[in-house]
Amino acid sequence: MFDKEIYRRRREQLKKSIGSGLLLFLGNDDTGVNYADNTYPFRQDSTFLYFFGQPYAGLDAVIDIDNDREIIFGDELSIDHIVWMGNQPTIREKAEMAGISDTRPHAAIKEYLAKAKNAGQRIHYLPPYRDAHRVKLYDMLGILPGADTPSVEFIKGVVDLRNHKQPEEIAEIEKACDVTADMHIEATKATRIGMRECEVAAALEEVAARNGYPLSFPTIATVNGQTLHNHIHTNIIKEGDMLLVDAGAETPEGYAGDMSSTICAGRKFTERQKLIYDIQVASHLAAVDMLRPGVPFEKVYDKAAEVIWDGLKGLGIVRGDAAEAVKAGAHAMFFPCGLGHMMGLDVHDMENLGEVWVGYGGRPKSTQFGRKSLRLGRELEEGFVLTIEPGVYFIPELIDYWGGEKRFADFINYGELDKWRDFSGIRNEEDYLITADGARRLGKKIPLTTEEVEAMR
Amino acid sequence: MFDKEIYRRRREQLKKSIGSGLLLFLGNDDTGVNYADNTYPFRQDSTFLYFFGQPYAGLDAVIDIDNDREIIFGDELSIDHIVWMGNQPTIREKAEMAGISDTRPHAAIKEYLAKAKNAGQRIHYLPPYRDAHRVKLYDMLGILPGADTPSVEFIKGVVDLRNHKQPEEIAEIEKACDVTADMHIEATKATRIGMRECEVAAALEEVAARNGYPLSFPTIATVNGQTLHNHIHTNIIKEGDMLLVDAGAETPEGYAGDMSSTICAGRKFTERQKLIYDIQVASHLAAVDMLRPGVPFEKVYDKAAEVIWDGLKGLGIVRGDAAEAVKAGAHAMFFPCGLGHMMGLDVHDMENLGEVWVGYGGRPKSTQFGRKSLRLGRELEEGFVLTIEPGVYFIPELIDYWGGEKRFADFINYGELDKWRDFSGIRNEEDYLITADGARRLGKKIPLTTEEVEAMR
Repeated sequence: MFDKEIYRRRREQLKKSIGSGLLLFLGNDDTGVNYADNTYPFRQDSTFLYFFGQPYAGLDAVIDIDNDREIIFGDELSIDHIVWMGNQPTIREKAEMAGISDTRPHAAIKEYLAKAKNAGQRIHYLPPYRDAHRVKLYDMLGILPGADTPSVEFIKGVVDLRNHKQPEEIAEIEKACDVTADMHIEATKATRIGMRECEVAAALEEVAARNGYPLSFPTIATVNGQTLHNHIHTNIIKEGDMLLVDAGAETPEGYAGDMSSTICAGRKFTERQKLIYDIQVASHLAAVDMLRPGVPFEKVYDKAAEVIWDGLKGLGIVRGDAAEAVKAGAHAMFFPCGLGHMMGLDVHDMENLGEVWVGYGGRPKSTQFGRKSLRLGRELEEGFVLTIEPGVYFIPELIDYWGGEKRFADFINYGELDKWRDFSGIRNEEDYLITADGARRLGKKIPLTTEEVEAMR
Repeated sequence: MFDKEIYRRRREQLKKSIGSGLLLFLGNDDTGVNYADNTYPFRQDSTFLYFFGQPYAGLDAVIDIDNDREIIFGDELSIDHIVWMGNQPTIREKAEMAGISDTRPHAAIKEYLAKAKNAGQRIHYLPPYRDAHRVKLYDMLGILPGADTPSVEFIKGVVDLRNHKQPEEIAEIEKACDVTADMHIEATKATRIGMRECEVAAALEEVAARNGYPLSFPTIATVNGQTLHNHIHTNIIKEGDMLLVDAGAETPEGYAGDMSSTICAGRKFTERQKLIYDIQVASHLAAVDMLRPGVPFEKVYDKAAEVIWDGLKGLGIVRGDAAEAVKAGAHAMFFPCGLGHMMGLDVHDMENLGEVWVGYGGRPKSTQFGRKSLRLGRELEEGFVLTIEPGVYFIPELIDYWGGEKRFADFINYGELDKWRDFSGIRNEEDYLITADGARRLGKKIPLTTEEVEAMR
């Protein structure tokens, strides 16, 4: 945990921005895998972590703005718990580390909320993203599953604070990025023809685990890089394959890193692979070059997509003006995902609070295929931390689907494209902090170009 | 998945044992870690796996005994899903692999259940162990969270089938046990003074991951072996420490392995450590020696506890008759947990269905501290698979708690015990199949004695 003054300051800023009412913070509990006591690794809710620290299950909290109270609700351990799970600080000691002196038994939260409701106080809560939150809202407030109405003011207040990373947070993210980079360097060195994908995944995850860092998201390590979030690791890596790795670690404090690499199965990429790889790198560098406060990230996305378009035009796969093609959405055949996203206590930071608030400042997102997957579109500001991850993908199912209806036939040369249908996909990804006058890469450098990858093989 | 005839046979046996009504099988869905789409590794519900296979999220199933129908409810993938997550077999193809021909869109389950209810059919369901199940029961049947009434007939029918492992299951469990053994052998070789616990955990988990096997439960790798389920891995392993490792893998089909080792930090155990280690091994071997059909496992537990008692008596830590001490519960100071548990598709098999049904055949469990943690007490039968894991622990908090109230002062020599308060704990654990005339260890052998551990260092 950070110094208690940091949590105090965050809560003061939040209270000021919301003004009145009662803020309910639902902590996370353990989730059973196949029975209640065989639990997934515990992860505290990120907003709870941000305002209270407390990486422990069984806690909920209230900031009662109207009555100037901050309370953590939770139960002390029994001797049975201590025998099984080991000793822990008391609830009072835990709360004190976040500058909170008012702690109460967990059962008391129900009555506290009932009184607040009866007194006409507005009870603000955030969108539930686990069914456990839905059950809690029912238990605590009688809100039926699916009938919740989260507070937009609360969302906006939290988003505005968490979007602007402070020095202590940037230091944590940089630690996560360093370990994340080591994971990618390990994968780049370990990949061999004849291995199963899971062997590379195991090797890079071992780097995180050895540091005591959990994964920030499920590892992607696939010879089918054209599938964006592929979690199957059973394929054998064959000569001529590329292994796309998207993986990251988070610090014990909860701050994430997120990088991607595309690695040749053998010692060298083929000439054909280099043609596409170079396009991805050009797009990546063009995007990074634009990062500074005041630039709308959607413009950076447009630029990255246009560079990809022009590269593919050079290969005869597409035709027509890049800006027009991107505006129409034809580029999404090859680049159907976003260019990047906010990163912090969550790898897609605050995705549970809504991308429209986090990445668009409340402006509606596009509904166009491809562009709708851009999680971040707003003007960049100092303190934003985000990923840069353009990709070039050849997705057989999408080629068949669009090709069958001749979609964008003016732009896409389907005859030529068909020769590339089994190419798979390429993505590289780095993490950046927006500074006062530009941007700074976070964490150690990982291989980005074919030369840099080959030098490590 | 196994051959479809196996799933058919299991369902036929279940239908026959329950006789009438409608059986509702809730499949598992993805659970968000810190937002909905950052998911924990998916694990299908074990009872769903047993009767339908289907390691996929988004499915529920019904066996309508009265109308002789078996239906899997689920939705086909959209093109967006395929772009992001890759292609999958269709629901129809998936169902066919389990011998099911009736598949319907997921939304249809609600109407199907409503009609069954209106027709006066009894709807059987199992105890919910995730809040996601509670929300499903509300959505599908209007049952409020906490107001569920699971079917005892359904529980008993499932338990009776799953308790008796068939050859195809034993083969899977043996695969899990082999990888589990390799994890322990790796840990035994890798442990070094100066390492952090997480480095050993990382090394042994890498063995499972490299095989494409998930963990069957969260790894324990701790210098504080006296804490039974310790998941903290931040301590440095110091000279004179012992590292207690309890870890296992499960096969992609879902069958678990579960073993424990206690490893010396350096090349050798101290003489003092060997004194206690030998007691644990004697208890372990005495327990294994009793395993055969017809023996009540609670008697095996008594024997294991008595051997520990007699060993500690030899060191002057306790006094009095072993059988009397164990009956009174004094042994729980050193052995506060069970001796073993059923193992199969869950590491504590069917813990979600209730230990009283799985491990006691419906007979109530003891409420005595220590003995109440024995998950298995019933007479052993051919086909049972279980763990053997006696342990000897010195728990400072428990010494102070019992010592403060002079509990069992006739039996426990608190003056002598105090000299051992910082000893930590020792456990070794193997997995056994009950055969027609005895028992067979499952999986490769792992080091069990101090000599066997030291030989690997």
